[in-house]
Amino acid sequence: MDTALDVHRALTDDELRRLDAYWRAANYLTVGQIYLLDNPLLREPLTPDDIKPRLLGHWGTSPGLNLVYAHLNRVIVARDLNAMLVTGPGHGGPAIVANTWLEGTWSERYHDVARDEVGMSRLFRQFSFPGGIPSHVAADVPGSIHEGGELGYALSHAYGAAFDHPDLLVACVIGDGEAETGPLAGSWLSDVFLNPARDGAVLPILHLNGYKIANPTVLSRIPEADLLDLLRGSGYQPYVVAGDEPAQVHRTFAATLDRVLDEIAEIQRRARSGGVVERPRWPMIILRTPKGWTGPREVDGSQVEGTYRAHQVPLSGVRDNPAHLAELEHWLRSYRPEELFDATGAPVRELLDLPPHGDRRMSANPVTNGGVVLRDLALPDFRDYGVEVPEPGTPIAGATGVLGPWIRDVISANPQTFRLFGPDEVASNRLGAAFEVTDRAWVAATVPGDDHLSPDGRVMEVLSEHLCQGWLEGYLLTGRHGVFTSYEAFIHIVDSMLNQHAKWLKVTRAIPWRQPIASLNYLLSSHVWRQDHNGFSHQDPGFIDHVVNKKAEVVRVYLPPDANTLLATMDHCLRSRHYINVVVAGKQAAPNWLTMTEAIQHTRRGLGIWEWASNDGGTEPDVVLACCGDVPTLETLAAAELLRQHLPELKVRLVNIVDLMRLQPDTEHPHGLTDREFDTIFTEHRPIIFAYHGYPWLIHRLTYRRTNHENLHVRGYKEEGTTTTPFDMVMLNDLDRFHLVIDVIDRVPGLAARAAHLRQRMVDARQAARDYTRQYGEDDPQVAEWRWVRETDPTTP
Amino acid sequence: MDTALDVHRALTDDELRRLDAYWRAANYLTVGQIYLLDNPLLREPLTPDDIKPRLLGHWGTSPGLNLVYAHLNRVIVARDLNAMLVTGPGHGGPAIVANTWLEGTWSERYHDVARDEVGMSRLFRQFSFPGGIPSHVAADVPGSIHEGGELGYALSHAYGAAFDHPDLLVACVIGDGEAETGPLAGSWLSDVFLNPARDGAVLPILHLNGYKIANPTVLSRIPEADLLDLLRGSGYQPYVVAGDEPAQVHRTFAATLDRVLDEIAEIQRRARSGGVVERPRWPMIILRTPKGWTGPREVDGSQVEGTYRAHQVPLSGVRDNPAHLAELEHWLRSYRPEELFDATGAPVRELLDLPPHGDRRMSANPVTNGGVVLRDLALPDFRDYGVEVPEPGTPIAGATGVLGPWIRDVISANPQTFRLFGPDEVASNRLGAAFEVTDRAWVAATVPGDDHLSPDGRVMEVLSEHLCQGWLEGYLLTGRHGVFTSYEAFIHIVDSMLNQHAKWLKVTRAIPWRQPIASLNYLLSSHVWRQDHNGFSHQDPGFIDHVVNKKAEVVRVYLPPDANTLLATMDHCLRSRHYINVVVAGKQAAPNWLTMTEAIQHTRRGLGIWEWASNDGGTEPDVVLACCGDVPTLETLAAAELLRQHLPELKVRLVNIVDLMRLQPDTEHPHGLTDREFDTIFTEHRPIIFAYHGYPWLIHRLTYRRTNHENLHVRGYKEEGTTTTPFDMVMLNDLDRFHLVIDVIDRVPGLAARAAHLRQRMVDARQAARDYTRQYGEDDPQVAEWRWVRETDPTTP
Ligand SMILES: Cc1ncc(C[n+]2csc(CCOP(=O)(O)OP(=O)(O)O)c2C)c(N)n1
Ligand SMILES: Cc1ncc(C[n+]2csc(CCOP(=O)(O)OP(=O)(O)O)c2C)c(N)n1
Ligand SMILES: [Mg+2]
Ligand SMILES: [Mg+2]
Repeated sequence: MDTALDVHRALTDDELRRLDAYWRAANYLTVGQIYLLDNPLLREPLTPDDIKPRLLGHWGTSPGLNLVYAHLNRVIVARDLNAMLVTGPGHGGPAIVANTWLEGTWSERYHDVARDEVGMSRLFRQFSFPGGIPSHVAADVPGSIHEGGELGYALSHAYGAAFDHPDLLVACVIGDGEAETGPLAGSWLSDVFLNPARDGAVLPILHLNGYKIANPTVLSRIPEADLLDLLRGSGYQPYVVAGDEPAQVHRTFAATLDRVLDEIAEIQRRARSGGVVERPRWPMIILRTPKGWTGPREVDGSQVEGTYRAHQVPLSGVRDNPAHLAELEHWLRSYRPEELFDATGAPVRELLDLPPHGDRRMSANPVTNGGVVLRDLALPDFRDYGVEVPEPGTPIAGATGVLGPWIRDVISANPQTFRLFGPDEVASNRLGAAFEVTDRAWVAATVPGDDHLSPDGRVMEVLSEHLCQGWLEGYLLTGRHGVFTSYEAFIHIVDSMLNQHAKWLKVTRAIPWRQPIASLNYLLSSHVWRQDHNGFSHQDPGFIDHVVNKKAEVVRVYLPPDANTLLATMDHCLRSRHYINVVVAGKQAAPNWLTMTEAIQHTRRGLGIWEWASNDGGTEPDVVLACCGDVPTLETLAAAELLRQHLPELKVRLVNIVDLMRLQPDTEHPHGLTDREFDTIFTEHRPIIFAYHGYPWLIHRLTYRRTNHENLHVRGYKEEGTTTTPFDMVMLNDLDRFHLVIDVIDRVPGLAARAAHLRQRMVDARQAARDYTRQYGEDDPQVAEWRWVRETDPTTP
Repeated sequence: MDTALDVHRALTDDELRRLDAYWRAANYLTVGQIYLLDNPLLREPLTPDDIKPRLLGHWGTSPGLNLVYAHLNRVIVARDLNAMLVTGPGHGGPAIVANTWLEGTWSERYHDVARDEVGMSRLFRQFSFPGGIPSHVAADVPGSIHEGGELGYALSHAYGAAFDHPDLLVACVIGDGEAETGPLAGSWLSDVFLNPARDGAVLPILHLNGYKIANPTVLSRIPEADLLDLLRGSGYQPYVVAGDEPAQVHRTFAATLDRVLDEIAEIQRRARSGGVVERPRWPMIILRTPKGWTGPREVDGSQVEGTYRAHQVPLSGVRDNPAHLAELEHWLRSYRPEELFDATGAPVRELLDLPPHGDRRMSANPVTNGGVVLRDLALPDFRDYGVEVPEPGTPIAGATGVLGPWIRDVISANPQTFRLFGPDEVASNRLGAAFEVTDRAWVAATVPGDDHLSPDGRVMEVLSEHLCQGWLEGYLLTGRHGVFTSYEAFIHIVDSMLNQHAKWLKVTRAIPWRQPIASLNYLLSSHVWRQDHNGFSHQDPGFIDHVVNKKAEVVRVYLPPDANTLLATMDHCLRSRHYINVVVAGKQAAPNWLTMTEAIQHTRRGLGIWEWASNDGGTEPDVVLACCGDVPTLETLAAAELLRQHLPELKVRLVNIVDLMRLQPDTEHPHGLTDREFDTIFTEHRPIIFAYHGYPWLIHRLTYRRTNHENLHVRGYKEEGTTTTPFDMVMLNDLDRFHLVIDVIDRVPGLAARAAHLRQRMVDARQAARDYTRQYGEDDPQVAEWRWVRETDPTTP
């Protein structure tokens, strides 16, 4: 390829004129949405009554977005591209809405907003208007998979969309402000994980309009040579398109786009011609144009166009200030609407002819409505992967290690629609079986001795929770499936990304043309109780709390107590749609409790009385021992056995909870138990000692309306921890078996007197267990190797 | 400066030998900590009994850290530097601990771990041992301000420490894995905000050991030319030190350090010689050495040194496998301990002479124990900044706008110890008064028309919540003060950083030699209820929920209802120590309720009955209207007035809460009310209608133990929102005045029948208010302009 751009041959004069008209139309429609209640075609002079009372929206970014959109339309048609757009500066909502209206999709989705004068008037009115549409590139906008409200995730979403979509071009506008965020800065190197043979292409367009809300941007004020170095260092070949003279920018941008698309085609051709897949230098574009370009140059004596003042609404006094009103009218008319829309208010033929048609329109690309292209996973029968559980407590096997082979076969059976994501923890989370059939995606140098790295890998490992989350979201939103496995503590890193995804799911449930997508599945092993190598910083079970604040209809939380239950749970999650499923399960060797048949039943019910561990004989118990989470379940069973041995007359009911949302009232969550069911299981008056995996108050928050809430006593993680042994950890938080026995003694009426000796022995047992760790550095084997013994077993000590 | 390094002149042979001995000593002590229970000096052949039962810790990163530490020691002495070290790979805890022991600080802090054989034995034993010390560079480690457990924040912490410490050199080791995280990637450009004249220097040392846990790192596998471009593009001059032959690496590293420090000195000299301050090209180091360098080359046939297998514990079977035991002994002896430690077990004189002494030791630098250098802020009397409140409801003034001038004067009065941080929102959050006395820190290009940018600015604005948080943490941890102002929704971006800081605060409270530092103050304006320009993605009050999961003794949450209360609250926060204070306050024009005297009283109490808005005349009311947050307070007062008008015989008590933690029992939180106090205010049996700013269930979680919890009915944000009017927002969530009246009617026994008409009118009023917004696009002025009218006022409509 030669290096000189042929700026003058990319567009004929006629093409230039038509592109510019399209751009003016989109700009006109953008300004109209921000300002106008009525008089959409300016058939009359503007009056204050035509103006919205509240002027909302973001103009500054919009002309740039409109330029990008128009030019992409040209090349989509010229090359019959399968393309979509991720709009980083999603606050430019009116720009993208304008484009979807111009290309007809908006009216197809929303019949009352036709491509005519009445429709245009509604288009304008509805924007940021009560009962209308939001200000951003929200889910309401056809073609959007990215609202762009919280900045930072544009590029990771774009890469996620491109994975396993070999024919797709994902253009991605990145604001120069957004580029300052950590998550965006950490996304550039995603190209190391994109296989040019198997995956589609991402075309980053860094929109260097120079400003964010009230400040210049860093990338626009460092030397351009530095900026180019930065992007080259990330593996790109940046092309700069700069200017403020429309015709010149149109020509340069068109020529650059042609060039860049030629390079992408060549990269893909080479990668797909059968040779070795190597990391190419992907082209990208830096678009350096003024913020608020073509808007008011100056307002009230201050420069606006080309400054941060253009960010939102440049003319703010339009209703009361006749000069502002006149300037607005002048501004609107500068786009020459009379040339752009016909007598009916429809875009003129020339405009209609410019964009692609049908599914080629970026706003109608089926992958942007992921549910439409989503196919069920081929799931191997998880029952074949379980552990044999001859009796409760045997064998000892880590849950995720058992899950691994099933995940492996899910990968094999779905070679184009499923990926596993993790921040360098897939192997340490014991899912290494995956590497029997695939590798880690890696399109950079390798050396002998490398462990399962290849461009074809289907495991996505990068030390960035943000990237894992962003890629997975992009992958799901475009119709595929995945699992994200991570440390429990560090998944908080993506709290805010989860918020945004949960909001997206909630909103799209109510948008009739949006089809449900696959659920976002978290598998959190390496959880709070087993941070043996690490310490306090790695101990935090609060992600669950964070998730349950989201809208009930989109969140599910599971804490399977053992391997078979984990298998049944994951199978359920991978079949589910449009949820966020949080699954917490240990990776460490641990006893298994349920046969596969029992596990399936238990998972379906979401919770259940474990009869084999209860001795209430179906009558009302003296105490309910409830447990949720693998470690609390183990401690509770050990406590139950201690009670059985030492207080055999005490009637104990043991309840295990897998599906945390079962605890909420059915009025609050679709999985909630009715009060009657809850009362039956947890009794109306008996003490409940609840051993919970996470922060204890969450259980109270979920159950405070239940009849027996007053008798509910919860143990859980109370933010006490350090680098120590597993049993010392539960003792630090009073969640250990001995303390649970003490809790029972303290809560069951009448027991205190009777069981004083046992209570004291429990206090001593805690002290002894603690002393043992201080002396030997590990847990007393009597504690660590405790095994459940069946009640009838005569060998019970 | 010339460009060729004089590798051979940096170190004499003797210096080289001494440096290498020091490095070997640190490596020996590192391995000892990971493995040894006893026999610290290998006076006897190793036996299985000498080995810890649980082998924990991270070897891989340690030899690199030890190398950096030793070389920094050399130059600190040679140049009498004031230096500290931020250890990104904080899992290399044993390495840093080893160094602090070698230089004596560890023994000064922990007298039982002396620099002798017994001390060494304790040093080894305590590491990652129950009752001992954590595995990371935790707060227990002298000289640490950064645990490095959750990766990503090393460089932002380092910059935060350097601000306003002109003489300080902050060396910062960044793991090549950590460099993949978003927050770290977004930290490189911090140099744009560092003023070489006023601030200290940061020396990033990118530790390219090639691997993370189970994978190679991206930066080690892209072409080195790309890596250099990337760093140059961020404004650095990178110097590569590479090799695996110790002597050669020592020489190159020493020469490079000299070079780099010369450059830094020259940069500072130039910047401080009175001319214009410009952005220099800061030098930095890329250290490319093998992971697990000097450790076992191969274990059980697999290469370990120089691969990811060296990450944790290279020889894992030492206790049971005699071959492993022998290899460990061989490895330990390879450092020639007999040359390094004398007969008493103390480091030999030559080692003692190498590091700096006293406060010059990085582990003893007073800034790393921030409380020691912390000085109280000079705080202007906030009472002088309040609004006159002639009667409740007047004047209309936005709270943060009133706060602005006080913040401005705090900045002026503390020109070296206070900064304001925000992600491009200081002006939009109405704190623009700050710019009357200072600028935004900015050390890049400026253009005419720029708004308050200069190298001397004390407002830190960058579009990265991660950077704001990281800088502020680094600033606070080294003894200064600050405020972080941000959108309420997007502060979730730093949830996990907050976790880590809260953990640090909790742990350091229990470390006697650590002095309390200034609190981390969040001012969240632009909150959930007033996202007029934006939509659902910007509406999330859950940060409060996240924060209250942290240890009670370190978190405080305030929701001042008006401007004077905000002033009193912020004054309190800036005087406080060692907390995380979350303050939520609106920026929009709103009524003010309390005079300054009342506001002070109210803030001190944390909550109170507003007598002027109650009509229970000091007797038991029929209903308690509780409110917390500015918007809920407004709606509650409007509801109270409606009740007063339409049900004048109903005895209403209005309670406002500023300090959310007052709601918790005193056993749970130091600010908690006793049950008696709570019962007095909220009654034991009367319905409480609680209008809360955030998610309603948080109030239940805080109060579920209270006597009257059963009668508590909370309205708050239930995750319903979009771009709409302020009143439509409260209606969408049933928090509006009309709905609160309905709630009262529905909950006060006997009222339902009597107030049926009023109830219906309220339903109609909601509908009418809604219809108004749909028609006019704004709130009905009757609603929006509602003002509180004193009870006795005859003009009450
Ligand atoms: C994470 C985050 N922090 C803060 C904001 C508030 N915000 C909205 S738009 C904007 C400026 C965006 O600037 P840029 O990315 O350059 O977009 P453009 O200039 O194209 O509008 C900011 C800071 C946000 N949306 N997200
Ligand atoms: C945010 C975060 N995600 C995951 C981890 C788990 N983790 C601990 S160490 C490590 C690898 C670190 O690699 P690097 O930064 O290169 O350090 P080094 O090679 O020097 O050990 C990982 C992924 C973590 N500590 N923090
Ligand atoms: Mg911008
Ligand atoms: Mg590394």
